[in-house]
Amino acid sequence: MKVNGIDYRTVWMEGTSVFFIEQNLLPFRFSIQEAKIHTDCCHAIRTMMVRGAGAIGAMAGFAMAQAALEAPASEYLPYLNEARLDIGSTRPTARNLFYAVEKVFVAAMESPAAAVAAAQGIADRDSADSEKIGEFGNRLIRDGMNIETHCNAGWLAFVDYGTALSPIYRAHSQGKKIFVYADETRPRNQGARLTAWELHQAGVPHTIIPDNAGAYLMSLGKIDMMIVGADRIAANGDVANKIGTLEKAIVAKEYGVPFYVAAPTSTFDAACAGGSLIPIESRSEDEILFQEGPTPDGRFEKILVCSPGSTAYNPAFDVTPAKYITGIITERGIITPGKTQIGQLLSM
Amino acid sequence: MKVNGIDYRTVWMEGTSVFFIEQNLLPFRFSIQEAKIHTDCCHAIRTMMVRGAGAIGAMAGFAMAQAALEAPASEYLPYLNEARLDIGSTRPTARNLFYAVEKVFVAAMESPAAAVAAAQGIADRDSADSEKIGEFGNRLIRDGMNIETHCNAGWLAFVDYGTALSPIYRAHSQGKKIFVYADETRPRNQGARLTAWELHQAGVPHTIIPDNAGAYLMSLGKIDMMIVGADRIAANGDVANKIGTLEKAIVAKEYGVPFYVAAPTSTFDAACAGGSLIPIESRSEDEILFQEGPTPDGRFEKILVCSPGSTAYNPAFDVTPAKYITGIITERGIITPGKTQIGQLLSM
Repeated sequence: MKVNGIDYRTVWMEGTSVFFIEQNLLPFRFSIQEAKIHTDCCHAIRTMMVRGAGAIGAMAGFAMAQAALEAPASEYLPYLNEARLDIGSTRPTARNLFYAVEKVFVAAMESPAAAVAAAQGIADRDSADSEKIGEFGNRLIRDGMNIETHCNAGWLAFVDYGTALSPIYRAHSQGKKIFVYADETRPRNQGARLTAWELHQAGVPHTIIPDNAGAYLMSLGKIDMMIVGADRIAANGDVANKIGTLEKAIVAKEYGVPFYVAAPTSTFDAACAGGSLIPIESRSEDEILFQEGPTPDGRFEKILVCSPGSTAYNPAFDVTPAKYITGIITERGIITPGKTQIGQLLSM
Repeated sequence: MKVNGIDYRTVWMEGTSVFFIEQNLLPFRFSIQEAKIHTDCCHAIRTMMVRGAGAIGAMAGFAMAQAALEAPASEYLPYLNEARLDIGSTRPTARNLFYAVEKVFVAAMESPAAAVAAAQGIADRDSADSEKIGEFGNRLIRDGMNIETHCNAGWLAFVDYGTALSPIYRAHSQGKKIFVYADETRPRNQGARLTAWELHQAGVPHTIIPDNAGAYLMSLGKIDMMIVGADRIAANGDVANKIGTLEKAIVAKEYGVPFYVAAPTSTFDAACAGGSLIPIESRSEDEILFQEGPTPDGRFEKILVCSPGSTAYNPAFDVTPAKYITGIITERGIITPGKTQIGQLLSM
């Protein structure tokens, strides 16, 4: 996608280095950073400089490829095995990360060059899948629709195009008049910071709403459709995604608002029978207790926004049972959980 | 309630002045301020230095009494009428405000002293009602319960004791082991700032959660009951309360979690047939776009937390239909919407 007129991916490899957009600085500063070795990539994933299921997956693949390039010939397999564990432990929930690590690890058994090619293939496929998701999802969008989205499943969360936002970009570029309500998405504000920034860059009409306002807008008939992303989808169609997704899905069902999940099939975890088996990451309470951002005169400050004597609890994801989901928009078409067997789909 | 060992009400009158706890400074600074004339009270309500249904009501009553004391004898009625409109326009949603203004206005027809007595009576009744709500609500609380609450309907939102938190204080003081999940309550963070501060002062075990985490906790069976406050209750039992209440009520019903509203009968608006007739206040988008608080080294800063190019939409309340509400805890007992006719109750 374009930033100030220049085409970017969120993460890419040049030579032995991985380059990425530093997402913790957005929307206040657009900065490209370089990860010279695979542990730099691990650090970037862990600290959420690179975040979002697809972007994490691509970066993890590149990190594994870097490890293959770094590994001394005499210690090739032990080095790769250690890197595989290290990269695999950066974040627990997103399926794409493990998918990429395993795929590139297997390719690295052939040669470092094969590992790089496999990682590049994952990034390219992520981008192509996202574009396809935009095509299928766009068929659901009618002129004049108001669409709510949660968190950021835009191009920043993938390599390019995004998932939940890809159909929106497609619809907008075809001249459909749409309006997007972007959930703020506490505690990290990916909606208010990243989705709003993406939509503003793309010229899509939108406004930011507090996470609390979704049901109110639906009760007034102001939301025609919700589209969200996914970090992992179990074999039964249960979806792990950003905390708050479950709440929105329940409320959407109550008001008859179609609730779509947009995700490439690489997000499906056929080995995971149901949502309750998906590990949910708990993150630091500081993400709730403090907020960071620029003052009106441009200084960057971190402030306390909670009562000083209190703790906070910060689960980063939740699991939405398949029964609340109208459809899953994939690069192969739209799946109806319960109707389409996901295992079948993956073996197609 | 006690702050640093001293008993306080949130708002009170001494001579011709109204004193109040400045809630915008909490939890970072505890400061008592003085409103010398009724327009000072209006300013304090408008800017939410005093907020919460009961506290607003008491302050509006005191403001009306101040107006009676201020009014020149030759212009008594026109002055009072203007003050009535002025005070009545400070906030649109809370029923208590209009209830208090009208009651003190009528008393002022007799004499300024009668107006002061009426205003004092409203504040005293608010405190006594809240204490009673604590008694009735406590009967619902069993040892070991995990209770979620939204926004702040603690003593800061009333004159004393509070509504949603009053049963919690009562249960805690009786030695019941309870744990409170305080919804952060974006955009103004009354849960993270005020409810957490109150619970910490009172020594009630608690933690702050993002508004997004409610459904997740319920899906894990970690919430035994929700109690929230109310700004206005229509004759059919529909409840206007802080934005996000509707969302929680729908989710609670889905998971079979009892959802209680705690409010004095002065919150009921018998003239309002249903929730769709309750005016909902839209507040400034700046409450979403910016956050204020202290830096780790103690400077107070305002920072931008959203993408600079975007707008935000900030409805302050929503309406929860009676069908989602397990019961309304009042000073006269617990009402089951649908079973108890609220009109009947009010004429009892």
